Amino acid sequence: MRPYNKKDFPTSNVRRFLEPGPIVLVSSAWKGKANIMTMGWHMIMAFEPSLVGCYIWTENHSFEAVRNSKECVINLPTVDIGSKVVGIGNSSGRDIDKFAQFGLTAVPGDKVKAPLIGECFANFECKLVDSSLIRKYSLFVLEVVKAHVATSPAPCTTAVTVYS
Amino acid sequence: MRPYNKKDFPTSNVRRFLEPGPIVLVSSAWKGKANIMTMGWHMIMAFEPSLVGCYIWTENHSFEAVRNSKECVINLPTVDIGSKVVGIGNSSGRDIDKFAQFGLTAVPGDKVKAPLIGECFANFECKLVDSSLIRKYSLFVLEVVKAHVATSPAPCTTAVTVYS
Repeated sequence: MRPYNKKDFPTSNVRRFLEPGPIVLVSSAWKGKANIMTMGWHMIMAFEPSLVGCYIWTENHSFEAVRNSKECVINLPTVDIGSKVVGIGNSSGRDIDKFAQFGLTAVPGDKVKAPLIGECFANFECKLVDSSLIRKYSLFVLEVVKAHVATSPAPCTTAVTVYS
Repeated sequence: MRPYNKKDFPTSNVRRFLEPGPIVLVSSAWKGKANIMTMGWHMIMAFEPSLVGCYIWTENHSFEAVRNSKECVINLPTVDIGSKVVGIGNSSGRDIDKFAQFGLTAVPGDKVKAPLIGECFANFECKLVDSSLIRKYSLFVLEVVKAHVATSPAPCTTAVTVYS
């Protein structure tokens, strides 16, 4: 193949090319209220211990819940619930109870108080293990302390990617 | 839909679910030698400035090149060159010249000395703007200072994902 012809592209939109990894749902609980946010900025940082770095904006309602409770659950949705994933991303836990609004099942975790989302095919219970990068980068370094994965459907073929 | 039935899953393999974002090629140059690595652990950290966090292992040959030159290029391959992406990931710049070995075109950048890969549909020239997290997390915080994107094919539909 030949090299592509290219044009300049605004650096602030580079995210559109690099972020379409699996869109995940982050569930949390704080002061008796559970919440869910849709998240696209995350990366594996180590596999043993199992570390995940993720960006949670200060304006996200989940920011204080995850920072204060020091835990959350990363849930992997499938394309079946793609419209819920978008709806969760376009609403705020300040205004609604997202579990009720989107008809999702809060399942108790084993190691964290944040609820798992039953309708997601994988749930990773996480502890916040390094909060030192939150102020500068909104970067939460989480350790996955327990993972639950459905045996079917084959997960890698059904992960939903939602483009913005 | 009903909540899934699940089984426990080893936390050290959680990466298999979270890392299938776009696999990228990182090109670098140091002491007159260009190199390429295949990378799967990266995330957007901000869009203005355009920051990308990425994990480069100390044992990767590119580690010293990127750390010392303080720059690199993130290149987005398409499925056409999927076998090259795998080959690049399974070989080391210690042993071979990857541009020559894999028949790729090194295109001069505008703002960095690291070469762009012509056969990739997007090339993001990056400067290392924060090296303070390299020691603890092998985390390079890069700023995209110039982006080049092909106008065709439609990029989001052709990004290659390589499962390990």
